[in-house]
Amino acid sequence: MPRVSEPSATAREQAAQRLAALATPPNALGRLGELGVWLAACQGQVPPRPIENIRLVIFAGDHGVAAHGVSAFPPAITGAMVRTFLAGKAGVSALAAAHGVSVRVLDIGVDEDFADLPEDVRAALTAVKIRRGSGAIHREDALTRDEAHAAIEAGAGIARQEIEAGAQLLISGDMGIGNTTPAAALVAAGLGLPASEVAGRGTGITDETLSHKIDVIQAALDRAGSRREDPIETLAALGSADLAATTGYLLAAAQDGVPVLLDGLMSVACALTADRIEPGAAAWFAAGHRSTEPAQSLALSKLGLEPLLDLSLRLGEGSGAVAAVPVVRSAIAVLRDVALLEELEI
Amino acid sequence: MPRVSEPSATAREQAAQRLAALATPPNALGRLGELGVWLAACQGQVPPRPIENIRLVIFAGDHGVAAHGVSAFPPAITGAMVRTFLAGKAGVSALAAAHGVSVRVLDIGVDEDFADLPEDVRAALTAVKIRRGSGAIHREDALTRDEAHAAIEAGAGIARQEIEAGAQLLISGDMGIGNTTPAAALVAAGLGLPASEVAGRGTGITDETLSHKIDVIQAALDRAGSRREDPIETLAALGSADLAATTGYLLAAAQDGVPVLLDGLMSVACALTADRIEPGAAAWFAAGHRSTEPAQSLALSKLGLEPLLDLSLRLGEGSGAVAAVPVVRSAIAVLRDVALLEELEI
Repeated sequence: MPRVSEPSATAREQAAQRLAALATPPNALGRLGELGVWLAACQGQVPPRPIENIRLVIFAGDHGVAAHGVSAFPPAITGAMVRTFLAGKAGVSALAAAHGVSVRVLDIGVDEDFADLPEDVRAALTAVKIRRGSGAIHREDALTRDEAHAAIEAGAGIARQEIEAGAQLLISGDMGIGNTTPAAALVAAGLGLPASEVAGRGTGITDETLSHKIDVIQAALDRAGSRREDPIETLAALGSADLAATTGYLLAAAQDGVPVLLDGLMSVACALTADRIEPGAAAWFAAGHRSTEPAQSLALSKLGLEPLLDLSLRLGEGSGAVAAVPVVRSAIAVLRDVALLEELEI
Repeated sequence: MPRVSEPSATAREQAAQRLAALATPPNALGRLGELGVWLAACQGQVPPRPIENIRLVIFAGDHGVAAHGVSAFPPAITGAMVRTFLAGKAGVSALAAAHGVSVRVLDIGVDEDFADLPEDVRAALTAVKIRRGSGAIHREDALTRDEAHAAIEAGAGIARQEIEAGAQLLISGDMGIGNTTPAAALVAAGLGLPASEVAGRGTGITDETLSHKIDVIQAALDRAGSRREDPIETLAALGSADLAATTGYLLAAAQDGVPVLLDGLMSVACALTADRIEPGAAAWFAAGHRSTEPAQSLALSKLGLEPLLDLSLRLGEGSGAVAAVPVVRSAIAVLRDVALLEELEI
């Protein structure tokens, strides 16, 4: 794979100078100023260009652990939600329509064949499908090594398609009942933490289920052993097809120099994994929304990222990042359109 | 003045039922769900209507205390910033353009005559001007009682004009060097707190200036004495023309049943004062952005409001509320456009 280069230091410096020269009190633009400087560095342009073409890809897949009592919902919901995305009627669909974000959903590892869908829809949905479901990680690997590589490549290819089609900002979403279990395991592996520090309540599990979920994650971590030290082995042992594809997608965005707005735990667990594969990848990522999952905050701290929003969303699907898109637009607007102090008549 | 009625309890209840019936996990929409329910209650309609017509009015005025070392900037900046709003080149102008918010600026008490402006522009700007500057509150009243009433009425009249013109959501902004000093005094008076608990750094003052600012606010509070118990006397003694007008504006919005998105300290100090004048007015207000000024958080707690955003903005001008407008749009979108669980094919 190509290496990841850094956002432009020159543009970052010039953008910081422009920010300081605006007709506002010093630092009055807060996070918007910082975000605008980062976008300018990513684009290599000062002030940053308006971002019109924003694309969310939702990676869907099932997880073997969902049959082992870690979630509040049954696995059949995964396919039902995929159909809801296709119909444009999910939570993230409403947010994406409100904020001008295009949505694409891909079946990477859903445990069904969508045989009821029209052939063209099904073909697009399953174009890069890796397998039906991923292994129950406390008992077996999620993926073979070949499947992990294939999923990473598939995700990278999807990112390149989106970039080719004009994407100026990429977002990843994830759909799959049970997905916070492998995602928390990826974070635990990446940060060297025990299951008890990373496990959260997902869509709303009880204390008893949470305790069981911790056992499942810890068993998975123990089973993976020293393979946790290698990020791709980690994806194979502890991840899933959708999470491996998301990792490849984020990695390709960084390699191609397209900024990414991260969503909740799944997105951030994959960002952490991408940064393990290619150190420096995270320089192309910003965090959209604070998750209630502890593993997300832990991974963001490691990556040096602070979320833009904290609206207590726990919907997944990329929804937190999509809700944060207008903050990105605000950041660009202030850096482009506010007068310079020298232009004021005082 | 007409009394304030409550947002519709029926619509609130129906909206909460709709929220619970959406095809999302329970409470997964977090603050967006709560905000959508509140908007439905304000509109008396479920799901809430899309909000297209959002209007920011910036109330500008000078403060006698600005000549007494409480601010990092000289008073001449007030008029310069008014001209920058008129030119559409201020921070809030950029944000408002990005998010489809109309901006109107009014000179309520600026200490100059804007004689250089074209006559029609000047006439519109100063149409409800109360006086040139407001009194230095540690030494004298900000306003006479007649001026306080006139400013409140003027602000109420402006709100009614905006509502007549179709406003579905109102925002107030404030411009005036030194404005955090009287605004903090309004909060101190409203909550019965000493100056040391409410004073903040405004646009960025030093420790030494902050210490002096506390003395100025405390002297003003002491001078006002028991008049602090009456909210209109408080505006006359401790406020200013722009803050009294803002209070009238917010009060009229509540009376006319139009929701308001509050901004930073000035907006919230006036919301607190409006709720003192007409208890229950705050039921029509939501908080847009967390200010770095301690008095804003104290007043919001009293009003039972939690800001939607915390982007470390300290620009004033209504900018925090305008930046939060897309969150309002998100809230409406999810309540309108997400499928009901019963519609899903599972």
